[in-house]
Amino acid sequence: MKIVRFSHQGSASYGLLEGDAVAVLSKPPFDGIDRTGQVLPLEAVRLLAPVTPSKLVCVGLNYTLHAEESGVPVPEEPMLFMCAPSAIIADGEEIRLDNASDRIDFEAEIGIVVGTTARNVAAGDAAKHILGYTCANDVSNRVLQKKDGQFTRAKSFDTYKPVGPCIETDLDPDNVDIKLWQNGELRQSSNTNDMIFPIGRIFEFVAGIMTLFPGDLIITGTPSGVGPMASGDEIVVEIDKIGRLRNTVA
Amino acid sequence: MKIVRFSHQGSASYGLLEGDAVAVLSKPPFDGIDRTGQVLPLEAVRLLAPVTPSKLVCVGLNYTLHAEESGVPVPEEPMLFMCAPSAIIADGEEIRLDNASDRIDFEAEIGIVVGTTARNVAAGDAAKHILGYTCANDVSNRVLQKKDGQFTRAKSFDTYKPVGPCIETDLDPDNVDIKLWQNGELRQSSNTNDMIFPIGRIFEFVAGIMTLFPGDLIITGTPSGVGPMASGDEIVVEIDKIGRLRNTVA
Repeated sequence: MKIVRFSHQGSASYGLLEGDAVAVLSKPPFDGIDRTGQVLPLEAVRLLAPVTPSKLVCVGLNYTLHAEESGVPVPEEPMLFMCAPSAIIADGEEIRLDNASDRIDFEAEIGIVVGTTARNVAAGDAAKHILGYTCANDVSNRVLQKKDGQFTRAKSFDTYKPVGPCIETDLDPDNVDIKLWQNGELRQSSNTNDMIFPIGRIFEFVAGIMTLFPGDLIITGTPSGVGPMASGDEIVVEIDKIGRLRNTVA
Repeated sequence: MKIVRFSHQGSASYGLLEGDAVAVLSKPPFDGIDRTGQVLPLEAVRLLAPVTPSKLVCVGLNYTLHAEESGVPVPEEPMLFMCAPSAIIADGEEIRLDNASDRIDFEAEIGIVVGTTARNVAAGDAAKHILGYTCANDVSNRVLQKKDGQFTRAKSFDTYKPVGPCIETDLDPDNVDIKLWQNGELRQSSNTNDMIFPIGRIFEFVAGIMTLFPGDLIITGTPSGVGPMASGDEIVVEIDKIGRLRNTVA
């Protein structure tokens, strides 16, 4: 099931993406899937980011090859930081490069969308609390990231967190291909089976610290191949079975 | 004006604290102050944290003497990180010490409550976008803070962000006394005039990165004198003209 959030005639709703159509839901998917019966052509709606999280939790250095390219040892525990939910944009929206003379990188990531309130959850039970998975681009200003030490500023500028296009509920998150294209050239190509900490372990770790609420988003680190973006670039994150998150750089 | 949020007969509302009474408001104060006419005795309500922010932005090392006691150079720019809004508790609620064998410190801070949506605001215009100020305790696990490098985990456990008791709208935030008592003994005693980056500069810096929304909370760093807490402690943060934020350690 592919869940989307969209704007139609000035109001935002959730729906199910079914081919080129969107079956409108009566309420957010966290409260159960309830179709209104209305079906809209996909071209008649504007996709929104599929979540409006109360918190956006991020994991650093979670793929073996990316840890190697970053020149840092493989961490013993997931390395967490947080970004501003106000940085989130939808599929099709523009990334704006503040401090454009700095090196500002793309980072393809798979995002976990929390389905039900969760605290102290074993890795094996994580799936019960997860609604599904989405694509994310963890845009990062490398100059500020290095200067600050803390990653928040470098990754929290408005528009620095493209998320979408949908939430896929039927997915084995520990074995899907994840790719990123820049202007049609493949830059990142991996599989979530290269993750140092798999999805269940990340969920257990985060929920061991903080209460997670429906719609909260955890982005889980990027594979190797990160690189800088420039004005005019088209960046596409593709995760098998979820789809393609496409954004251009303003 | 002292704005409180409270629970009464099972529902949450905003009100104005006037002596021992609470004048009930018809809507959140970000939309204007509108009294319903109902007045409740303070003892009949349960205070809630005065804000439920869409993001909780934190500043590290913002008092000269605290930078010295931490043994780090005075930063050139505000050092930002973010904590989970789910960590926020109200005046009177209990701080629970996860990983209680670690050193877990109190940190008295003044918090900025955003009043109106803000992006790219000059320091001199910050006050127009600020509703008021509150007391906060930035509870911090020093072992995890050092181990992780990123501050998010060490400071985001549930209950680690006491905030309250009210939002004071009439205050010169750059010249107020800030104090913290542990079991009646004075541990921190400073004035916001020792801040490295004053309130307006912090607001300008944060709003230069991310869009701030009504109710967002920025906590602005702690003065010198931080120290560890233990089970059973009573911790009181007092800021002149705002009031006293009192929490016990479970």
